[in-house]
Amino acid sequence: MKEDKLMVTLDKIYHASFVLKDMIRKTDMIYAPNINKDCDVYLKTENLQVTGSFKVRGAAYKISQLSEEEKKRGVIACSAGNHAQGVALAASKNGIKSLICLPDGAPISKVEATKHYGADICLVEGVYDDAYNRALQLKEEKGYTFVHPFDDDEVIAGQGTIGLEILDQMKDADAVVVPVGGGGLISGVAFAIKALNPDIKVYGVQAQGAPSMFNSVRDNKIEHLDSVSTIADGIAVKEPGENTFEYCKKYVDGIVTVSDDEIAAAILALIEQQKLIAEGAGAVSVAAVMFNKIPVRGKKVVCLVSGGNIDVTILSRVIKRGLLTSGRSYSLTVELIDKPGQLKGVSNIIADLGGNVTSVHHERASENSDINGCYLRIGLETRNFEHVELIKNELIKQGYKLV
Amino acid sequence: MKEDKLMVTLDKIYHASFVLKDMIRKTDMIYAPNINKDCDVYLKTENLQVTGSFKVRGAAYKISQLSEEEKKRGVIACSAGNHAQGVALAASKNGIKSLICLPDGAPISKVEATKHYGADICLVEGVYDDAYNRALQLKEEKGYTFVHPFDDDEVIAGQGTIGLEILDQMKDADAVVVPVGGGGLISGVAFAIKALNPDIKVYGVQAQGAPSMFNSVRDNKIEHLDSVSTIADGIAVKEPGENTFEYCKKYVDGIVTVSDDEIAAAILALIEQQKLIAEGAGAVSVAAVMFNKIPVRGKKVVCLVSGGNIDVTILSRVIKRGLLTSGRSYSLTVELIDKPGQLKGVSNIIADLGGNVTSVHHERASENSDINGCYLRIGLETRNFEHVELIKNELIKQGYKLV
Repeated sequence: MKEDKLMVTLDKIYHASFVLKDMIRKTDMIYAPNINKDCDVYLKTENLQVTGSFKVRGAAYKISQLSEEEKKRGVIACSAGNHAQGVALAASKNGIKSLICLPDGAPISKVEATKHYGADICLVEGVYDDAYNRALQLKEEKGYTFVHPFDDDEVIAGQGTIGLEILDQMKDADAVVVPVGGGGLISGVAFAIKALNPDIKVYGVQAQGAPSMFNSVRDNKIEHLDSVSTIADGIAVKEPGENTFEYCKKYVDGIVTVSDDEIAAAILALIEQQKLIAEGAGAVSVAAVMFNKIPVRGKKVVCLVSGGNIDVTILSRVIKRGLLTSGRSYSLTVELIDKPGQLKGVSNIIADLGGNVTSVHHERASENSDINGCYLRIGLETRNFEHVELIKNELIKQGYKLV
Repeated sequence: MKEDKLMVTLDKIYHASFVLKDMIRKTDMIYAPNINKDCDVYLKTENLQVTGSFKVRGAAYKISQLSEEEKKRGVIACSAGNHAQGVALAASKNGIKSLICLPDGAPISKVEATKHYGADICLVEGVYDDAYNRALQLKEEKGYTFVHPFDDDEVIAGQGTIGLEILDQMKDADAVVVPVGGGGLISGVAFAIKALNPDIKVYGVQAQGAPSMFNSVRDNKIEHLDSVSTIADGIAVKEPGENTFEYCKKYVDGIVTVSDDEIAAAILALIEQQKLIAEGAGAVSVAAVMFNKIPVRGKKVVCLVSGGNIDVTILSRVIKRGLLTSGRSYSLTVELIDKPGQLKGVSNIIADLGGNVTSVHHERASENSDINGCYLRIGLETRNFEHVELIKNELIKQGYKLV
């Protein structure tokens, strides 16, 4: 049995907690009353952790346990995201060198953030797998220690410190909901929680577009996904770790999946209700509870918000989508007769009803319109769907044709 | 001297702290290493307070001190923002009725949020002043207690509890920077801090478009602004309170102002660096430190982020502006000869260079273009300004004419 190889102990997690004390923040637990009316939701806000994600915990504990000889040689990792920043900061704080391999198409912002925390960067032509192979090759050549993003007992013990904090901050929780990519976070958290209070349920959440651990646990064997596609890039992992797979089977009560639309809705809810920025991966736990994917009715539930490193371009899209789906922005197309005063007429109606025009496109002579006709496409800020209807109805009432 | 009327005591603030214990959160103090490289910045995160703003503290303490008779009659307030939600929640938690007067043009979202916390709503035709007058009239008619948003000693004592928390969380701070609207928050915070450690500097920040306290303190008399205009609507106050004006003169070391662009940059920095949503009023303290408006070089500075209730439409605009000003979105206009294949040519160049097209408008026969010409306006997601230049130069090199 692989299970015999599982080496994390409660001792190790307590030790990690002690070692990490000065390097990480004990992040706040925040009540979130409106995520789901049928249960009491609390957020463990690892998006407010240094580097914007929990990953620094595992990396820092791993690095702290290296021998002096290993520390002298430095560490290497492969990541374009939170793990890279965690390793970079943890290495800097320990006064050792880190080298991070990244595919050369990685977003500039991530490369800059990683450099900023003190890492050397090795850009590798190709995709993630190419960068990974290059990292392994460099490890062999130069004697660097490879810091695995999840399938490593010391990394898992580091993430497990979150489990201790949750129990300290909310000892009477009924359930803890945890994002799952490679499975390092949930392995540590579930181990710590079950060791101290086996009555607390621990659930995992994956993105529908990257259900590697979900599939593997369901089929009771490690499965590989050929491709992954989700806005939760931080948990878009093709294959669980050998160890994390075993921890999940042993300590996790269930794994569910959420769609990208559900994740986007959770990100927007966290912004509007809680004033918190979560990245896609960080919001899946909230999405699962919001959309009733987990049996937590009437319970006290802790959603682990694992990180907040969302690209602001993506954030902007999520917000835009949220505005559209809640009737707070709308795009109207009006067919006009091409004569003076038409734009003014439409503008007056919209202004009188309190709509705020954000864009106007006026186009003549499309083959679909009347020979004298033209299209007017208007972007609007509106209050809600009733407000949209009000404006549309008034336009129709005054003789305009909506397309 | 008006000063003799100042009735806040340290006793009262400690009492407020005790009374508020179960109703509010002791919000976290979070290190913000990249706001200003020349000083150590910490954020007191009242945006993470219940109701999304500090206002609930003052309202709740005020309400807790009413007589049974007054409680029975209920409270009234006039506000379209954070004060309304604070009063509503505080009243509900004390089991008493609250009536909030709002101008009828108030954003639906604010009305809904206030209702949600349990208040009755009275929509008044007109603007804020009309709603205010109606509230005073109702107070007289019905015997409600009026809860002033800032110029009230018990409200000020409630806000002062933040000063105690700051000293508890960071006793060696050199300076505390506080947003100023009517002045209730800074009056309480400055009083508490100066009473316990007069060496700590307390600075106030106003929006350039609403500098009522700034002007009044400068000219040593209360001044009235005829109009205010800023994205920081939470501190767009036309005139300071009589009491708060005196507290500011006596306990505040200086007041500065910041522009709307500086406020927007601070909001974006809090999102990207700290994963926190601040509203304009909440971000002015951060803006003042970011843009070196305050002498804090080499110091340990606490920026009070007073609230996070920003409309998501405004947020979307702030982000959009931030993307534009940092080269992460761009809009190109290309003049094309109107023949097949031109759009394809441009698309290829952009795609090859890693630009992401977000919108395309193609328009023929404008009077400004060649008779066979047309304009192609393309919205792009880009990495930074160098990336924008790269794409523009390649288009020019391949013979396209940029407008």
